[in-house]
Amino acid sequence: MDIATLRDTHADHWGKACALRTLAMDAVQAANSGHPGMPMGMADVATVLFEKHLKFDASTPDWADRDRFILSAGHGSMLIYGLLHLTGYADMTLDQIRNFRQWGAITAGHPEYGHVKGVETTTGPLGQGISNAVGFAMAEESLRARFGAKIVDHYTWVIAGDGCLMEGISHEAIGLAGMQKLSKLIVLWDNNDISIDGRISLSDVTDQRARFAAAGWKVLSCDGHDPVDIDRALTEAKSSDRPVLVDCKTHIGFGSPKKQDTAGAHGSPLGPDEIKVTKDIYGWTYPAFDVPADIRAAWAAIGSRGAAARAEWEARLAALSDSRRAEFRRQMAGEAPKKLSAVIRALKKQNSELQPKVATRKASEMVLEVVNPAMPETIGGSADLTGSNNTKTGDLGIFNPENRKGRYVHFGIREHGMAAAMNGMALHGGVRPYGGTFLCFTDYARGAMRLSALMGVPSVYVMTHDSIGLGEDGPTHQPVEHLAICRATPNTWTFRPADLIETAEAWELALTAEKTPSVLALSRQNLPTVRTLHTSRNLSAQGAYVLREAEGKRRAILLATGSEVEIALKARDLLQAEGIGTRVVSMPCMELFAAQDEAYRKRVLPAGPVRVAVEAAVRQPWDRWLLGERGREAKAAFVGMEGFGASAPAERLYQEFGITAEAVAARVKELL
Amino acid sequence: MDIATLRDTHADHWGKACALRTLAMDAVQAANSGHPGMPMGMADVATVLFEKHLKFDASTPDWADRDRFILSAGHGSMLIYGLLHLTGYADMTLDQIRNFRQWGAITAGHPEYGHVKGVETTTGPLGQGISNAVGFAMAEESLRARFGAKIVDHYTWVIAGDGCLMEGISHEAIGLAGMQKLSKLIVLWDNNDISIDGRISLSDVTDQRARFAAAGWKVLSCDGHDPVDIDRALTEAKSSDRPVLVDCKTHIGFGSPKKQDTAGAHGSPLGPDEIKVTKDIYGWTYPAFDVPADIRAAWAAIGSRGAAARAEWEARLAALSDSRRAEFRRQMAGEAPKKLSAVIRALKKQNSELQPKVATRKASEMVLEVVNPAMPETIGGSADLTGSNNTKTGDLGIFNPENRKGRYVHFGIREHGMAAAMNGMALHGGVRPYGGTFLCFTDYARGAMRLSALMGVPSVYVMTHDSIGLGEDGPTHQPVEHLAICRATPNTWTFRPADLIETAEAWELALTAEKTPSVLALSRQNLPTVRTLHTSRNLSAQGAYVLREAEGKRRAILLATGSEVEIALKARDLLQAEGIGTRVVSMPCMELFAAQDEAYRKRVLPAGPVRVAVEAAVRQPWDRWLLGERGREAKAAFVGMEGFGASAPAERLYQEFGITAEAVAARVKELL
Repeated sequence: MDIATLRDTHADHWGKACALRTLAMDAVQAANSGHPGMPMGMADVATVLFEKHLKFDASTPDWADRDRFILSAGHGSMLIYGLLHLTGYADMTLDQIRNFRQWGAITAGHPEYGHVKGVETTTGPLGQGISNAVGFAMAEESLRARFGAKIVDHYTWVIAGDGCLMEGISHEAIGLAGMQKLSKLIVLWDNNDISIDGRISLSDVTDQRARFAAAGWKVLSCDGHDPVDIDRALTEAKSSDRPVLVDCKTHIGFGSPKKQDTAGAHGSPLGPDEIKVTKDIYGWTYPAFDVPADIRAAWAAIGSRGAAARAEWEARLAALSDSRRAEFRRQMAGEAPKKLSAVIRALKKQNSELQPKVATRKASEMVLEVVNPAMPETIGGSADLTGSNNTKTGDLGIFNPENRKGRYVHFGIREHGMAAAMNGMALHGGVRPYGGTFLCFTDYARGAMRLSALMGVPSVYVMTHDSIGLGEDGPTHQPVEHLAICRATPNTWTFRPADLIETAEAWELALTAEKTPSVLALSRQNLPTVRTLHTSRNLSAQGAYVLREAEGKRRAILLATGSEVEIALKARDLLQAEGIGTRVVSMPCMELFAAQDEAYRKRVLPAGPVRVAVEAAVRQPWDRWLLGERGREAKAAFVGMEGFGASAPAERLYQEFGITAEAVAARVKELL
Repeated sequence: MDIATLRDTHADHWGKACALRTLAMDAVQAANSGHPGMPMGMADVATVLFEKHLKFDASTPDWADRDRFILSAGHGSMLIYGLLHLTGYADMTLDQIRNFRQWGAITAGHPEYGHVKGVETTTGPLGQGISNAVGFAMAEESLRARFGAKIVDHYTWVIAGDGCLMEGISHEAIGLAGMQKLSKLIVLWDNNDISIDGRISLSDVTDQRARFAAAGWKVLSCDGHDPVDIDRALTEAKSSDRPVLVDCKTHIGFGSPKKQDTAGAHGSPLGPDEIKVTKDIYGWTYPAFDVPADIRAAWAAIGSRGAAARAEWEARLAALSDSRRAEFRRQMAGEAPKKLSAVIRALKKQNSELQPKVATRKASEMVLEVVNPAMPETIGGSADLTGSNNTKTGDLGIFNPENRKGRYVHFGIREHGMAAAMNGMALHGGVRPYGGTFLCFTDYARGAMRLSALMGVPSVYVMTHDSIGLGEDGPTHQPVEHLAICRATPNTWTFRPADLIETAEAWELALTAEKTPSVLALSRQNLPTVRTLHTSRNLSAQGAYVLREAEGKRRAILLATGSEVEIALKARDLLQAEGIGTRVVSMPCMELFAAQDEAYRKRVLPAGPVRVAVEAAVRQPWDRWLLGERGREAKAAFVGMEGFGASAPAERLYQEFGITAEAVAARVKELL
């Protein structure tokens, strides 16, 4: 539909959509950076969505049963900022719009979760939003099954561009959504034929409609500028029994004489002259950032049209029993149940006595066997390594279209899609997701794992086969740099527990974390129980602690994590036998140790004794602890990996790579 | 087709295929680990492929014009080991087969490039092989266009399983291949309906045939156990004008009464009893690892059937002019042309005088403008950020189906697929690939970048927008941990050049590397020329060097990379003004510095003076250089990032995060 027709026949719609367009044009121009083309192209679709379909109430952004709106094409951030501003989200003032992309403003270059209500997830890295949305829709299905459709019954809407659809993660997401028949997931594809390099045909010939249909989706289409046609398609989308792709044919930079339908509209300000000409074509005669009162009023009405539905929902929530309502609120708030620490303590106590020799991946399963019954909000899964990751416990049931009460997800061979869906589930609220693969394949999930950290989403990554200790599968499967990678990532807790006791403590911390994702690096091979003296305190919460004190004068401190704690203890035996007093520090979580006060850190790692760390991985994260924050604290050495692993039985690999008690003891003696 | 029919009507084929099956069963059993089900399922397809279609000569594995065979489903490694053994690859002795997955054997758990001829690429991480194959096919097209079909004219064959097809990277790969109309790429899909967790339907309902068709592929199918039907499909595949998917319907663990068509066949030995029963069903009466002489002879004949074609090809190569033949050989060997260092030196000399203030991404483009004409084998590209990554130079032309001589690839929004295709191109030989995206989005490409390092493939990753210095796009686009990630990865050179001179040096090192991939971390923002004194020597080859010496007594050493070298120099000015003698060390490549002898390292970083490093990234990789390998060398501090960035103009961000010359100088004075 062309602009003249739109102006003539849909004047009310046109005014509202132009308010979105011009705010985007003006804000990008003021910032002298940003992406005007997408908001200009998708303003009509967004207007119809918010006016006629999206269930929301701008006065109550946290309404649990609101529809979720996800701007997967996050570079078009001014579209969502404009929508939030015009519909009356309190935080999104005109000043914020004017300060787009400036220090301290909530209007970041790409939408940042936590900066502003109404931004349900952080987007910008392409393909993440559409993949988060799969998790949102899964969480909705799960909660609806558990609390009933009177309390949970809403859609997840996504705007995605060609970038999102070209990214590999989108394949994983749409495959998962198609298999799961997530009928309340609706993706609005901004089909404008343009990417940054130019026409889409420069790099892609994919028939996206056929592709989504092949993945089990319903496919609809509309003229993305015709409000009647958009409304028809969105109405039809809501009654599907499968997830829906709506192919919205649009023009990037709609209306700009020089920029429309070109890559030039994508990521640069239009320039003052082009803005002027374009506004003339729109019939928009107002100054920059100005929206006339009648259009403001129309948008404000849209912002409050959900108020009645929200009040009715609150009445339904109030009609629940007190305990049921409290449980709903607890789960939505992401608060762990009180009994969690009790079941963890009981498990620790029991096993401090039993002292099982099990792989920490198996230990993790034993923890989950007591945690999952205590936390009905957990949803677990694995990227097709269920038996290896030990992520499935007996009581969970399989989450699928026939059993929405199931709590175990066969994510398929989709590490990145799994991690992004976990983010979506956690962001939706009401479920607590964990998911597994091999630690090495965090490589495949990095994009989404970083966003867990950036957003402060407490997803739990159950990463087994955490070193050369996995043995014969060889270097493609053996992580050596991945602990360093996780530890280098801000706001991530990387746990590498040494035994079942530390594994239970790590799980307790991970499941009570509010704003931090956790990576649990777990062994394939069996490990002895090293924490044989029970304490109800969670020692792992301090990140590192003295596991065995030196006998006699303390001349050496050995630091280790996970499977290498056993080696450190054996090295201590060798050294003590020679009269060298040796402390062993277990360090299951460097980040938590770094967060302790200096006095505690000095107690654990006093200056003076030589330090040797042992970990079957690269040294990079260890220098800090070996050498001290300011250096000069100790003479130090590291026993670990310098390169990639190899394919052989695990014990042979430890021998060949020199990660042995004898080697650790020898390094201590060299330093003394 | 069932086993009885096969045995009766295709006895010759059956015997050969059973040799593959039983070697796999026996080797996995002997190792007590591995994956027998896939070789048992795909033995018929592989037998027909090698017997009737694959162009190869086992006596000359490096024949440049051989067909490439890629086992993307790398866990089925015993299939390729069996094929190489039976066809007579010299290295693949029966002893190697018997030592499957043992220390020192070339028969690693997953096929490792470089261990054994005939393994064209390392596979195991799913989806990589099929994505490498796209690069192989692109390299073949490029070389055929440049050297003619008499010299280069071969297919790339891939065996891929459901795991490969479910991974997101496969979406990127097949989209790229479809757009590029890579008609000599043929993927044989092991369609056995089983993944590790069980039936594929547990996690996926995708119609793979429709999906590939949607991406522009031709789709064929066959009974993956019927040699006649397989031959028909493979014959048809070779005459396509597009890439081809052959849907091979197979049974995992074919013939095993208890394991066929179950996940139990996938990743565990069958067990002695099941092996016995299965061999009985096969009619295979020989001891473990035994292949009767007639079947050995038949396989040996397959191994040599390409000898004549190879000899004819060698005659055609010999008929080229000497210079043309030498050029073909040079490019296939991956040797940089002699003139490369001359053009780099000339550029350095010129710009040491001109001293331009340019972003290092722009500097990189200026380097490529002189490199690309000197190296006809370079193929560059970007994951849809051409104008931002500055990867395209004037002379390249676009590589697409209409212009195979083009040397610039619009990879699309496909970071992972791009990196994997680059690996494939480099492994094929004859082309030297580089590709760009933002440094932050190495997250999306990690899986393939790790394999560059593991395989020793000298791909060049042009990673721009390398810090908060990119400004307004915000924390989703601002790397803080990515330098640490690249540096933690073994066998990877992470260059962060400070100016055009260091950028030129980094490119020279990257393009002459034989076994090491390079990451070039490049600034968005303009940087002054800091190397104003020309030297023809490549100082970056030492990894770090003294850029400015202290005046007076040396009391402090500042270490910096990239955009922060300018800050270090300003801090030195502040300190020298107060009489504090301060050396500035530029450290463009930590890995190369670590490889220098101790004497050089001590000359650059003598013990004693306080050390402050400055880099707009996390500290983790710096402790080693701040504190010294054994600690106690110096008092030290770090000025950089502790968490994620923010959205604002770059200069504001540097101020707010305290990465300034004043902060560096203040830290020095605190330490003194």
